[in-house]
Amino acid sequence: MTTHDAIRALVERVTYAPGYTSAVGTRVESAEPGYVAVSLAKTDDLLQANGFFHGGVIAGLADHAGGGAVTTAMPPGRFAVTINLQVSFLAPAKGTSLIARARALQVGSTIGVARVDVASLADGVETPCAVAVVTLRGVDFPAQ
Amino acid sequence: MTTHDAIRALVERVTYAPGYTSAVGTRVESAEPGYVAVSLAKTDDLLQANGFFHGGVIAGLADHAGGGAVTTAMPPGRFAVTINLQVSFLAPAKGTSLIARARALQVGSTIGVARVDVASLADGVETPCAVAVVTLRGVDFPAQ
Amino acid sequence: MTTHDAIRALVERVTYAPGYTSAVGTRVESAEPGYVAVSLAKTDDLLQANGFFHGGVIAGLADHAGGGAVTTAMPPGRFAVTINLQVSFLAPAKGTSLIARARALQVGSTIGVARVDVASLADGVETPCAVAVVTLRGVDFPAQ
Amino acid sequence: MTTHDAIRALVERVTYAPGYTSAVGTRVESAEPGYVAVSLAKTDDLLQANGFFHGGVIAGLADHAGGGAVTTAMPPGRFAVTINLQVSFLAPAKGTSLIARARALQVGSTIGVARVDVASLADGVETPCAVAVVTLRGVDFPAQ
Repeated sequence: MTTHDAIRALVERVTYAPGYTSAVGTRVESAEPGYVAVSLAKTDDLLQANGFFHGGVIAGLADHAGGGAVTTAMPPGRFAVTINLQVSFLAPAKGTSLIARARALQVGSTIGVARVDVASLADGVETPCAVAVVTLRGVDFPAQ
Repeated sequence: MTTHDAIRALVERVTYAPGYTSAVGTRVESAEPGYVAVSLAKTDDLLQANGFFHGGVIAGLADHAGGGAVTTAMPPGRFAVTINLQVSFLAPAKGTSLIARARALQVGSTIGVARVDVASLADGVETPCAVAVVTLRGVDFPAQ
Repeated sequence: MTTHDAIRALVERVTYAPGYTSAVGTRVESAEPGYVAVSLAKTDDLLQANGFFHGGVIAGLADHAGGGAVTTAMPPGRFAVTINLQVSFLAPAKGTSLIARARALQVGSTIGVARVDVASLADGVETPCAVAVVTLRGVDFPAQ
Repeated sequence: MTTHDAIRALVERVTYAPGYTSAVGTRVESAEPGYVAVSLAKTDDLLQANGFFHGGVIAGLADHAGGGAVTTAMPPGRFAVTINLQVSFLAPAKGTSLIARARALQVGSTIGVARVDVASLADGVETPCAVAVVTLRGVDFPAQ
């Protein structure tokens, strides 16, 4: 595997492992060093009473994308755990899916920061619904 | 119904309606004007790969609690939608359930702010796992 | 005056009026609807013990830039006041000046959100030192 | 000196050293392991056009208090630098002075988090004007 393939495989492995991200249906759209995009299709269990994606679902997707962007920019054997998540909601997430694109802004020996843009998609048109900044701490990857 | 009963009924209605909060199993523990506590029991679909509650689940619970605390402090017919959610993670959420307690710090004609403490419970012992500040905007309650 | 001139005049008037922003030496670099850039030269009174710009100074500059970006995107007669400020520090601000560039991401009838990039400059080279997201509330401009 | 005296001396030394905090007039009100309170008297150079304390000044005071609360909870020889600062403004800071009280919520080997309450004082009455959460990273104290 090339480095790029290995990075995508890592992000897919974490995303599709049993747990929250796979249970809600998170899909890996793109993964390269310092950049990760993930998406989520609308299901009844992800919505607020008004029929839009719940803020917690948007926050969770942003968190996962941000963690991926920073982890893929860290040295092999390290991964990033979130210490701070800040989300600003710009508009109701009315679409049939969400996409979160995260880019690492800074990755040091202990701390990394990612900026995340989240949009909702309806009829092929994206509408920004949230921006997030995720701050993470690097830890050693648990042995497999 | 007393005002207090009406407030609890409102928070329960929103929490248990079909959608994200009921799908993950959110329970209303307490609800009074300006204060809401909600809990969540551990299930496989709410976890990270390491077996702890996922950060997105913690953020979603904090968001819901904060929205409840501000909504219950608003005049009847108004409810609060989140515009900003900031979560600091203090420790891994290793317990068998989460509890989020939110208190409104300020509620004005258009904006409300709530502070939220989230703990994880194991063997009857609570360990703080996150603090959040939620900023919300008041809107008219949709007609039933 | 064109609209663009009027907007720059507004930002300059607020920035250079007696008070904090003029006392620290804030300069308006650019101002157009939804975008404002401001800078600040290093003086001894703006530093931490280590000789870098103090975090509070960076936060204040980001806040001012964000407020300008949202105010300039609002209808005439409206003015944006900050309700939430979140700053992530990426690197020590070691340069001889700071520049903060803010862009409005969303401006509605009551709420606006701006994203701000802050860099420090040394020998003509910019190094990003912080990113911020500022959430503001629109109010009527005080009569002159 | 007792440990408590040494902690107060450390906070005073950092606060009153040449630079931003002393230039604006920051006073140490209280300092013990994990808790720091600092205050600031109103001067024309700290205000917005409306005559209230500027948001950047409030943010800077909160940052300084939070850094003190976490540093005083760290082992001797370690020092906390801010990586994330989030401030929610609750009401205009109309008083003649500000007081920020910070308490460390969590201090680990690399990361610390403090919660800060900021109030403005007028005629002996405190009005809460902001809440902040400050996330910091521990570094080795520079040699004297």
